[in-house]
Amino acid sequence: MRFFSDNAAPACPAVLNAIVAANEQDTAYDGDRWSRALDGAMSDLFETPVACLWVPTGTAANALALAALCPPHGAILCHRDAHIQVDECGAPEFYTHGAKLLLIDGDGAKLTPRAIDATAAAIRDDVHQVQPHAISITNATEYGRVYSPAEIAAIGEVAKTRGLGFHMDGARFANAVAHLGCAPADVTWRAGVDALSFGFVKNGGMSAEALVFFRPDLADATRYRRKRAGHLQSKGRYLAAQILAMLAGDTWLTNAGAANAGAALLARAGGGRLIQPVEANEVFLRLTAAEAASLRAQGFDFYDWGEGQARFVTAWDQGEAVVRPLADAIAAL
Amino acid sequence: MRFFSDNAAPACPAVLNAIVAANEQDTAYDGDRWSRALDGAMSDLFETPVACLWVPTGTAANALALAALCPPHGAILCHRDAHIQVDECGAPEFYTHGAKLLLIDGDGAKLTPRAIDATAAAIRDDVHQVQPHAISITNATEYGRVYSPAEIAAIGEVAKTRGLGFHMDGARFANAVAHLGCAPADVTWRAGVDALSFGFVKNGGMSAEALVFFRPDLADATRYRRKRAGHLQSKGRYLAAQILAMLAGDTWLTNAGAANAGAALLARAGGGRLIQPVEANEVFLRLTAAEAASLRAQGFDFYDWGEGQARFVTAWDQGEAVVRPLADAIAAL
Amino acid sequence: MRFFSDNAAPACPAVLNAIVAANEQDTAYDGDRWSRALDGAMSDLFETPVACLWVPTGTAANALALAALCPPHGAILCHRDAHIQVDECGAPEFYTHGAKLLLIDGDGAKLTPRAIDATAAAIRDDVHQVQPHAISITNATEYGRVYSPAEIAAIGEVAKTRGLGFHMDGARFANAVAHLGCAPADVTWRAGVDALSFGFVKNGGMSAEALVFFRPDLADATRYRRKRAGHLQSKGRYLAAQILAMLAGDTWLTNAGAANAGAALLARAGGGRLIQPVEANEVFLRLTAAEAASLRAQGFDFYDWGEGQARFVTAWDQGEAVVRPLADAIAAL
Amino acid sequence: MRFFSDNAAPACPAVLNAIVAANEQDTAYDGDRWSRALDGAMSDLFETPVACLWVPTGTAANALALAALCPPHGAILCHRDAHIQVDECGAPEFYTHGAKLLLIDGDGAKLTPRAIDATAAAIRDDVHQVQPHAISITNATEYGRVYSPAEIAAIGEVAKTRGLGFHMDGARFANAVAHLGCAPADVTWRAGVDALSFGFVKNGGMSAEALVFFRPDLADATRYRRKRAGHLQSKGRYLAAQILAMLAGDTWLTNAGAANAGAALLARAGGGRLIQPVEANEVFLRLTAAEAASLRAQGFDFYDWGEGQARFVTAWDQGEAVVRPLADAIAAL
Repeated sequence: MRFFSDNAAPACPAVLNAIVAANEQDTAYDGDRWSRALDGAMSDLFETPVACLWVPTGTAANALALAALCPPHGAILCHRDAHIQVDECGAPEFYTHGAKLLLIDGDGAKLTPRAIDATAAAIRDDVHQVQPHAISITNATEYGRVYSPAEIAAIGEVAKTRGLGFHMDGARFANAVAHLGCAPADVTWRAGVDALSFGFVKNGGMSAEALVFFRPDLADATRYRRKRAGHLQSKGRYLAAQILAMLAGDTWLTNAGAANAGAALLARAGGGRLIQPVEANEVFLRLTAAEAASLRAQGFDFYDWGEGQARFVTAWDQGEAVVRPLADAIAAL
Repeated sequence: MRFFSDNAAPACPAVLNAIVAANEQDTAYDGDRWSRALDGAMSDLFETPVACLWVPTGTAANALALAALCPPHGAILCHRDAHIQVDECGAPEFYTHGAKLLLIDGDGAKLTPRAIDATAAAIRDDVHQVQPHAISITNATEYGRVYSPAEIAAIGEVAKTRGLGFHMDGARFANAVAHLGCAPADVTWRAGVDALSFGFVKNGGMSAEALVFFRPDLADATRYRRKRAGHLQSKGRYLAAQILAMLAGDTWLTNAGAANAGAALLARAGGGRLIQPVEANEVFLRLTAAEAASLRAQGFDFYDWGEGQARFVTAWDQGEAVVRPLADAIAAL
Repeated sequence: MRFFSDNAAPACPAVLNAIVAANEQDTAYDGDRWSRALDGAMSDLFETPVACLWVPTGTAANALALAALCPPHGAILCHRDAHIQVDECGAPEFYTHGAKLLLIDGDGAKLTPRAIDATAAAIRDDVHQVQPHAISITNATEYGRVYSPAEIAAIGEVAKTRGLGFHMDGARFANAVAHLGCAPADVTWRAGVDALSFGFVKNGGMSAEALVFFRPDLADATRYRRKRAGHLQSKGRYLAAQILAMLAGDTWLTNAGAANAGAALLARAGGGRLIQPVEANEVFLRLTAAEAASLRAQGFDFYDWGEGQARFVTAWDQGEAVVRPLADAIAAL
Repeated sequence: MRFFSDNAAPACPAVLNAIVAANEQDTAYDGDRWSRALDGAMSDLFETPVACLWVPTGTAANALALAALCPPHGAILCHRDAHIQVDECGAPEFYTHGAKLLLIDGDGAKLTPRAIDATAAAIRDDVHQVQPHAISITNATEYGRVYSPAEIAAIGEVAKTRGLGFHMDGARFANAVAHLGCAPADVTWRAGVDALSFGFVKNGGMSAEALVFFRPDLADATRYRRKRAGHLQSKGRYLAAQILAMLAGDTWLTNAGAANAGAALLARAGGGRLIQPVEANEVFLRLTAAEAASLRAQGFDFYDWGEGQARFVTAWDQGEAVVRPLADAIAAL
């Protein structure tokens, strides 16, 4: 059984059904009835008017959001281990036309207002240095940690004070919200977030992510950038339908809750081996090479994550029942 | 019934079935078994070793191909009405980092060796002018015209003589091949083409196009560019599966043949109204405003295409039988 | 004697003296007393508050101006023969990150409101086409023609109506003003121009051009772009000093007047051979190959300008007296 | 007296005289006799065939060099305090179209083979991470430290082994060579360097730096990039003349030697206050706020360099005799 990544999971039934149901003739690009329903559905979910654009990947969503918030000669403040820095092959630089990512340290891939302030304060205010224009955080983080509404609001304050845009990479936003049990608004625009990459693919989607702008005017230029990047799919209805299907009946939350529950079970089994608190659907454990080999021999696949460490990720279809054999195997090490 | 665009059509059964069949756990990105099968399947089809990358749109395929063939300080020679010039919001400029498109006239959106040569010859060979690095043609063209193998080979000779890369926008490549009845190789690498944007979406696909490099080394940097552009979907198997499904049993040719047959029927009905010979699945007719209104009143939708002209596009699901009512209505005008 | 280009001329005495006089220790970049005096001197000249940045080339000035007026996904309307299109190796595309130049025809490299409107009106207002964001004209034009204040104001009206930025390439702005005898303000901001590339190098400068923003806020981001492009010279005082020296005592007008007078003398000699009215310092003549050879044999160098045509450019040091031998030789053909 | 920066110094007499001597009519751009002599003069100096392009700033030279060595989707390995990272407003990102700078620590702003290797080895060899394509070092460094030929050769070995381009930012290359007493070739191509930004402006030049390619083919595309960036000055002879004048009679070495001697005198006066060994023309001292204020009260200007630290830079015209009052004042603190 694979615990490499929630990307490895199939699409959930709701998504697959929605794709089949959308398989009829309609207007091309984003003029179809599914695409036109997105703004409304997301505005309902977030309890405020938003603009929502579908794109096929989190990398596209992140890069388009950052391009809307930072000029080519600006800088984006983010964590050293942020996905936008280490796993997107320079997509932010491509879409922003060469902005610089300024890297900040922090436990669990989390930024703090203090750390952000220290980095921003060290930049001379002259034309020789790129000036910060945006902050980007990931929630849940790359280490499966979750920012609380208060933590995000504190960063939002820094953004506001310094005049910076505020982006959230929410590849696992659903897992964060499921963990927090809060309103989606509480960890986004109410806390100062301007743009959210709202992930669906890791959570049971097939090929659709939602880029949500809480300042809807940011979408205006972004629509051109999306087309220009080749992301305005001609049969966009299949993407919009996926997102709508996952919002309907809170499938997005149910799926994320299941993945979180699976991870929680692994966390309990991991006990003292845990490197990070498990708050979403990622589990980082200390494992010797022999222990890792033993688990693999039992059919469990996962990534090594540096010397003596391993990462396990649960997906929407890997809830408690499915994950129990791995939990037992870890406990038995 | 809609004749706006073949983009409006649904996905064909083979594609939908393939997506459902691919809905299982596998490696992320393009490491899955479907994606890994693409190079082989395309090499078989083209009778030569090729490298094939899936992307979701023709715009992405075109822009990535051009970025592989032209540096930022170079120029691409193309028709004034080429899709890359008029319908991609500057995607070639984005992906090439600012190359210039040099526009050439020609009947039916076709380029001739003579016209290409005249444009290239007018460029001073100094650093003040962008130098041509690539030619891009569309087959079938934006006006539904088809280049023969000999015509393409003649352009390929110009490319070779002048040291230019040669790209083919094949958004309707299937329609061209179905019309010609030739081997796909005859209108591509055998005629000097280096890179082909092989379209599937207009031809019954859902969200997958194939970028085919006949010089496989061109794919090396392109793999990075694809990721960097946010086009390396995390569940790439659903794209690869679509392409494989359409290659299997020559569904791609069957679909295109049906669309072409529908267009041929309209052409016969159009008679003297035809603005361009109908060789693929697009029909351009002279219609008065009253005639256009009459057709629309009968439930036929299509685009006006300049003063007194209209465009009708047939799709894979709009073969002779389906199209007959429109043909009759045109004949009755 | 060379009539290739006014670029071939040496620097005028005022400029050379200013450079020598500035050869002392001062603050680096643009913090020195010469650079700090530029805004004031230019504001005086233009009778309105402006922001002025020195750069070493007209290409840099043009490209920075266009980047301030047009986003990467936008288009710039300009003449087909505009310097920014044919002689800057894609600098506008580089600095704007891939904007598109939309080319317009017009006699003498001049644009008309009607032609601009026709081009802009042909662009569909959707995300598939790059939307116009700026107009760029050259005064005096690449064919030595001069726009009158009224002509520019008419284009300024189009810009205002359509919400477009308005840039003037003034590589030979001095020659235009000398010809018109108007206030510099009359052919710039009073006529709706937002940014002017004010040329000095062709007019007796050594290495300094002035980028003048009539909307001073446009300079804010441009200061970063200038640094980022490597154009913020560390000893900027030598550039500022050149510009100040040429403004002092209206040397810029005197120099341009001399060049214009030289050209006018050639024009009189050219008579019926003239291809364009001579309004600045460029003269385009019909010459047979034999006639061209004859002039060259007498020691006059110039460029062929297409079949049976030749271009002669006079510089600040090629006034009537100096040019007379060439005028006589032309008259004697 | 100013010790802010060697950028504040005037041009040296040889340079000014050369500019005056070049003030005559010649071919524009880089077709003049001075520009055409550059390749030869630099090839003589470096004892190998090189291609040399003049540009007005070190930032332009660095950025053009890096663009020649690293694609948009690649990474450049450099020191965390490298000028290209902290003082060029993102010029490398602009010219490379978005390459990433990967930052490495090291005493005195020096890189070691070990540190470079560790950074490169941590990059996964997949398309999700930008892959290193070039190393850039500064000699003398931003902290006035000098790499020996052996140290550079060791880095050159890393570059060769890993297939990386090797760039040297030589804004103070002259000071390094003057310190080492070696042949220029010993610290460049013989040690594996592919491209050198050879600084003249800080060393008595006015507005000319030399970009030297030891793999002359790298200059081919760079000539287009230089034009496209607006750096191909129309009266390039004034830049070429400066460089030739400084090479003649080893003025470049004499000037640098004088600056180094001035710094050495300050270093002896600084004694235990020294933060870095003084090997070139920069002196970093521990100074209390009171001490700094005292020096400033005596008329000496310099930059604070973090808490309790100060930077003094000597220029070509600040040799031992000129600097003695400052040295005495420091000794007397």
